[in-house]
Amino acid sequence: MEFKIDATDGRARAATIKTVHSEIKTPIFMPVGTAAAVKSLDAIDLMDVLDAKIILANTYHLYLRPGDEVVKSFGGLHGFSGYKRSFLTDSGGFQAFSLGDNVKINDNGIWFKSHIDGSSHFFSPEKVIDIEYNLNSDIMMVLDDLIALPNTKERIKKSIERTTQWAKRSLVHHIEKGAKNNLFAIVQGGTDFEFRKISAESLVGIEVEGKTFDGFAIGGLSVGEENQLMYDTIEFTTPFLPENKPRYLMGVGTPEDIIEAIERGVDMFDCVMPTRNARNGYLFTTFGTLRIKNAKYKLDDKPIDENCSCYTCRHFSRGYLNHLFKAKELTYFRLATIHNLHYYLNLVKEAREAIIDKRFNEFKKEFYSKRIN
Amino acid sequence: MEFKIDATDGRARAATIKTVHSEIKTPIFMPVGTAAAVKSLDAIDLMDVLDAKIILANTYHLYLRPGDEVVKSFGGLHGFSGYKRSFLTDSGGFQAFSLGDNVKINDNGIWFKSHIDGSSHFFSPEKVIDIEYNLNSDIMMVLDDLIALPNTKERIKKSIERTTQWAKRSLVHHIEKGAKNNLFAIVQGGTDFEFRKISAESLVGIEVEGKTFDGFAIGGLSVGEENQLMYDTIEFTTPFLPENKPRYLMGVGTPEDIIEAIERGVDMFDCVMPTRNARNGYLFTTFGTLRIKNAKYKLDDKPIDENCSCYTCRHFSRGYLNHLFKAKELTYFRLATIHNLHYYLNLVKEAREAIIDKRFNEFKKEFYSKRIN
Ligand SMILES: [Zn+2]
Ligand SMILES: [Zn+2]
Repeated sequence: MEFKIDATDGRARAATIKTVHSEIKTPIFMPVGTAAAVKSLDAIDLMDVLDAKIILANTYHLYLRPGDEVVKSFGGLHGFSGYKRSFLTDSGGFQAFSLGDNVKINDNGIWFKSHIDGSSHFFSPEKVIDIEYNLNSDIMMVLDDLIALPNTKERIKKSIERTTQWAKRSLVHHIEKGAKNNLFAIVQGGTDFEFRKISAESLVGIEVEGKTFDGFAIGGLSVGEENQLMYDTIEFTTPFLPENKPRYLMGVGTPEDIIEAIERGVDMFDCVMPTRNARNGYLFTTFGTLRIKNAKYKLDDKPIDENCSCYTCRHFSRGYLNHLFKAKELTYFRLATIHNLHYYLNLVKEAREAIIDKRFNEFKKEFYSKRIN
Repeated sequence: MEFKIDATDGRARAATIKTVHSEIKTPIFMPVGTAAAVKSLDAIDLMDVLDAKIILANTYHLYLRPGDEVVKSFGGLHGFSGYKRSFLTDSGGFQAFSLGDNVKINDNGIWFKSHIDGSSHFFSPEKVIDIEYNLNSDIMMVLDDLIALPNTKERIKKSIERTTQWAKRSLVHHIEKGAKNNLFAIVQGGTDFEFRKISAESLVGIEVEGKTFDGFAIGGLSVGEENQLMYDTIEFTTPFLPENKPRYLMGVGTPEDIIEAIERGVDMFDCVMPTRNARNGYLFTTFGTLRIKNAKYKLDDKPIDENCSCYTCRHFSRGYLNHLFKAKELTYFRLATIHNLHYYLNLVKEAREAIIDKRFNEFKKEFYSKRIN
């Protein structure tokens, strides 16, 4: 993986990531394709309609169904889904922890029962890497030790130490296998600055046979804490991460969250919000959130957002979308998803342009001033 | 509407219909877009991906939601949905009869309560035409008097007489309004040849101010009768319909039904089968029906049908579709729907070519010989 910083403005960065499968201009948003499909879209939609350069897939879901060996037999995620650009896969730990039954964690990994059929499974750091190799994702996340919050200081400390141990084992295993996929470590520590510092420093310090992690993620945020506390934690953490490696904020967030995190030096984002909210009738616009089921849109022949150039806004009216949503027509889901993802992809693209032009502050002010909802 | 016969082979016909919105080469299949959307598809899919020249929309559904006046305010179905080619609308009578509650029929029309909110409504022949004008469909079906089968000879006779009376009232109203949309009458009579003859002759004989119907439909078939009896009824009925007007077999059917009906002189078809079966995992192919959830497709990297050139078959494998179906991914529905509609549209296109080449019999033999399921 190549990583080159193209410009900075304050702590905000515009960079270029090159994987085997695509060139990614950052800041970037990665649509979530849980089961090797972004819900309601296909690979052509993602490449030709949305021009997404990298998407996320979920290791837990694909391991259980159809099985990582099945995906491998189709040439990995790229051959299976038809999406030929980059994939990032999470470790599956979060889903095993939150969706699995009878979850038991020890120093070696996570035992869980499948939420689909109740079968027993075990994720170790090495096992997860093996699954991700089968999926052949361009960026693989290490398994981390997740805990329910709030929790005791002792347990949080244990989680950070274990996350570091597991990250090291992952890197050792990765090097032994000799593959070219990229491996990212995950900084944990909740909203406790001291823990974040320890976690970041220990992960950044891991070196095996001269090799370090290809990038670093900030995990465990946007889990209910106040926005400002999340922003402060990001602001505190990013200086402990290397300048010359990508920084990925996992599972965050609203358009506001993304702008605030870019300002604090984050390069990569993923979140189910644009896709899930689309399906629930909440559409993102430059002026805030539009609830498409609102009766006032019934006779409205304008597009969702007159400032939007997406496929949906070019062809369809709020009135038609209001009708499709209320009639529960399947057609609605794809059109709404395309618009919301376009909004997110365009937002980070505009942020990048602002960074390159050294006007990120003005961009941010303008972004907030337009929002009326 | 212009109607020109391009070729015949036996009783099979290849013709061209020109409406204000599109040129339609027959035999033609019309995808069903109940609520101004073919389920899971949008107008661009229908025009650019499938090249469908005419689709169907349901008067009952659109009258109740979003309301025909709403559709009118968007410039009719074409403006509302973005599908710029031809629309055919049914009369809504069938849905009022089958979906509505407390249905009461008298000589003047049909009283029913909405299946959505229980509100009371009345469809008269004139009211239905008014609704269809608001929808601005290119081909409007008259309201007919539907009855539950089996029924007494007296009631069936009454239904045919009333259907003729209503058809005449529809034509009178249509001429009074002076609009350019086209009006089709519907031949009823179940599988009773004598009733079919009476119904066809009386409808064909209706002339108001020198004007007759623009086309004739055969209704009330494919409701549980034996296939051969349906084919015999079609074969008996078509000779009573004018040569120089389109013939439309309503709501039929399987690929076999369509081939048999074309052979017996039918030009136009609609059916929910390709779209509904797609959603339920039944995919049409040249070799018969493929059930995509079957475990044998899990590792299958071939397209649904190697003889198919549709969008789905060009980009996606049986294995990926098997996964999407089993994981209940929304993405599945559009891909399967595109394939099944392509199959139907291609089937009638090949039938047309065979008629023009005077080899319909060979085409039919080949069609059956390929089917192994
Ligand atoms: Zn848009
Ligand atoms: Zn196909």
